[in-house]
Amino acid sequence: MTRIGILGYGNLGRGIELAIRQNADMELAAVYTRRDPSSVKIATDGVPVKPTADLEAGTEALDVLVIAGGSATDLPEQTPHFARLYNVVDSFDTHAHIPDHFAAVDAAAIEGGHVALISCGWDPGLFSLNRLYANCILPEGADYTFWGKGVSQGHSDAIRRIEGVADAKQYTIPVEAALDAVRAGKQPQLTTREKHTRECWVVLEEGADAAAVEREIVEMPNYFADYDTTVNFITQEELDANHAGLPHGGFVLRTGTSATGTPMTIEYSLKLGSNPEFTSSVLVAYARAVARLSQEGAAGCKTVFDIAPAYLSPNDPATLRAHLL
Amino acid sequence: MTRIGILGYGNLGRGIELAIRQNADMELAAVYTRRDPSSVKIATDGVPVKPTADLEAGTEALDVLVIAGGSATDLPEQTPHFARLYNVVDSFDTHAHIPDHFAAVDAAAIEGGHVALISCGWDPGLFSLNRLYANCILPEGADYTFWGKGVSQGHSDAIRRIEGVADAKQYTIPVEAALDAVRAGKQPQLTTREKHTRECWVVLEEGADAAAVEREIVEMPNYFADYDTTVNFITQEELDANHAGLPHGGFVLRTGTSATGTPMTIEYSLKLGSNPEFTSSVLVAYARAVARLSQEGAAGCKTVFDIAPAYLSPNDPATLRAHLL
Repeated sequence: MTRIGILGYGNLGRGIELAIRQNADMELAAVYTRRDPSSVKIATDGVPVKPTADLEAGTEALDVLVIAGGSATDLPEQTPHFARLYNVVDSFDTHAHIPDHFAAVDAAAIEGGHVALISCGWDPGLFSLNRLYANCILPEGADYTFWGKGVSQGHSDAIRRIEGVADAKQYTIPVEAALDAVRAGKQPQLTTREKHTRECWVVLEEGADAAAVEREIVEMPNYFADYDTTVNFITQEELDANHAGLPHGGFVLRTGTSATGTPMTIEYSLKLGSNPEFTSSVLVAYARAVARLSQEGAAGCKTVFDIAPAYLSPNDPATLRAHLL
Repeated sequence: MTRIGILGYGNLGRGIELAIRQNADMELAAVYTRRDPSSVKIATDGVPVKPTADLEAGTEALDVLVIAGGSATDLPEQTPHFARLYNVVDSFDTHAHIPDHFAAVDAAAIEGGHVALISCGWDPGLFSLNRLYANCILPEGADYTFWGKGVSQGHSDAIRRIEGVADAKQYTIPVEAALDAVRAGKQPQLTTREKHTRECWVVLEEGADAAAVEREIVEMPNYFADYDTTVNFITQEELDANHAGLPHGGFVLRTGTSATGTPMTIEYSLKLGSNPEFTSSVLVAYARAVARLSQEGAAGCKTVFDIAPAYLSPNDPATLRAHLL
């Protein structure tokens, strides 16, 4: 059995706990939290909730610690820190800072003799894998990534910070015409506005100025100003009834040509009922790989690019060759 | 530079020659043929065409020999034979015989201290990778593979062997309704007939009995009897003008649920203007990986499951992390 610890018990931590149940060779050893452990009720009977401080001696009986924190402030600190003490997996997703994060985690993991896997999930993660495979196979071509239809938690948060907004949910939606042009092999140059639209469902506080809120949303720099944005005002009851989930997904495409100019298209897509639950499933599969690599004596920081696919599976290589090849 | 030899110069051999041109770190060292080398005109100036016998001493200056033969009789003999002498890659695609082929090639490659990669291409190959990744991430779900729209060379050959047929091309076409049901997460049980249709374009010999030919096609066991098959009679000129290429493609889907029952769909698809040219591009990318693994001291038989994605790329890991992760 691969013994998994989870650090942090938000949406992602809960998702990891559930994903472990779908893998008979894995068990949840403990949940670690910065909150008062007695205040954290988890879904699995008989598994302890412990303070993060318990990890510090490096003596917890874990094969892999999955760090379920946020990329803004948690992971840049936690992942290097705990990579010295345990095999770790994180879902660091600030693309621009991946090289720095990798360097810090790699040094710590090598020092501690552990394996660390960073930036795991679906983007970065499965989408990255598909970009890499497609680029290697079609050296002459163009890459496209579209996200959605799905809930952007960052954009939903940005709307909720506006004065007069009680609650909100924002969906990122790929533009079908852009997807169709890419699929047709036209290799279009697409602006931000041409690739995605943004759809907002907003609950106003009593007496709020709807027109002012709408204007503030659609003109918000970075978040909305570069997109065609629609704003819909609804009641809290409607929001709760119709927009409670965290669905997401997207498309990775590469179109290119062979040396004779023959067109080729590679497309990968995800349609996810729950973004955090799916991300968790990816993290758990890669935790298995990390445990194995560590058993083989590996150390240092890895990404999904460095891990042979067979390491993710509970089945032995002969079974995989017979049934999935 | 990675020096590639090609054994066999049919559609696949020609495709490999062309794919090498799209990879600046690779060069074609020689083409080996069982025919009279002077009768084989290749597309690359200054590269020798040699008899297969020249390979026997194991002294050809090659980093990888890509074996471009057929799965029925060539590869079961050639790949184990040459894996003793060189690093090799093949596209063995008889799924049921992969375990036997692996065992024979593995023994030979270990004996010779070489790396062999078998069953590379898109199915087996990229489709296999997607089945594996999806199975590891969604342990509870169902797999579907659809092929087409594309030319099945085996089925086209079967039609051409019928008395009264001068020429023919057969397209395998996925049934849209079945694809839609799978995408909707319904996990349907699909019969052979429900998944694919077969479309035949047939040129009759003068005086042939069209009705008899059509009946013989649609009733042919294994090839057509289990499918809804349409037969169209056309002239040789029409066949040459409209059905000259070898397009192919297909879809790999896995639909499943998280532990809470939330639906998830993973879909991968290829739309290929030329089946042999795309297969060749995959073989060349994996030849790079084989050369590297050999340089690292590896030996034995591998499949796409055993090779970390980064090995396929000409770019270094830091570049990949910065640009594709």
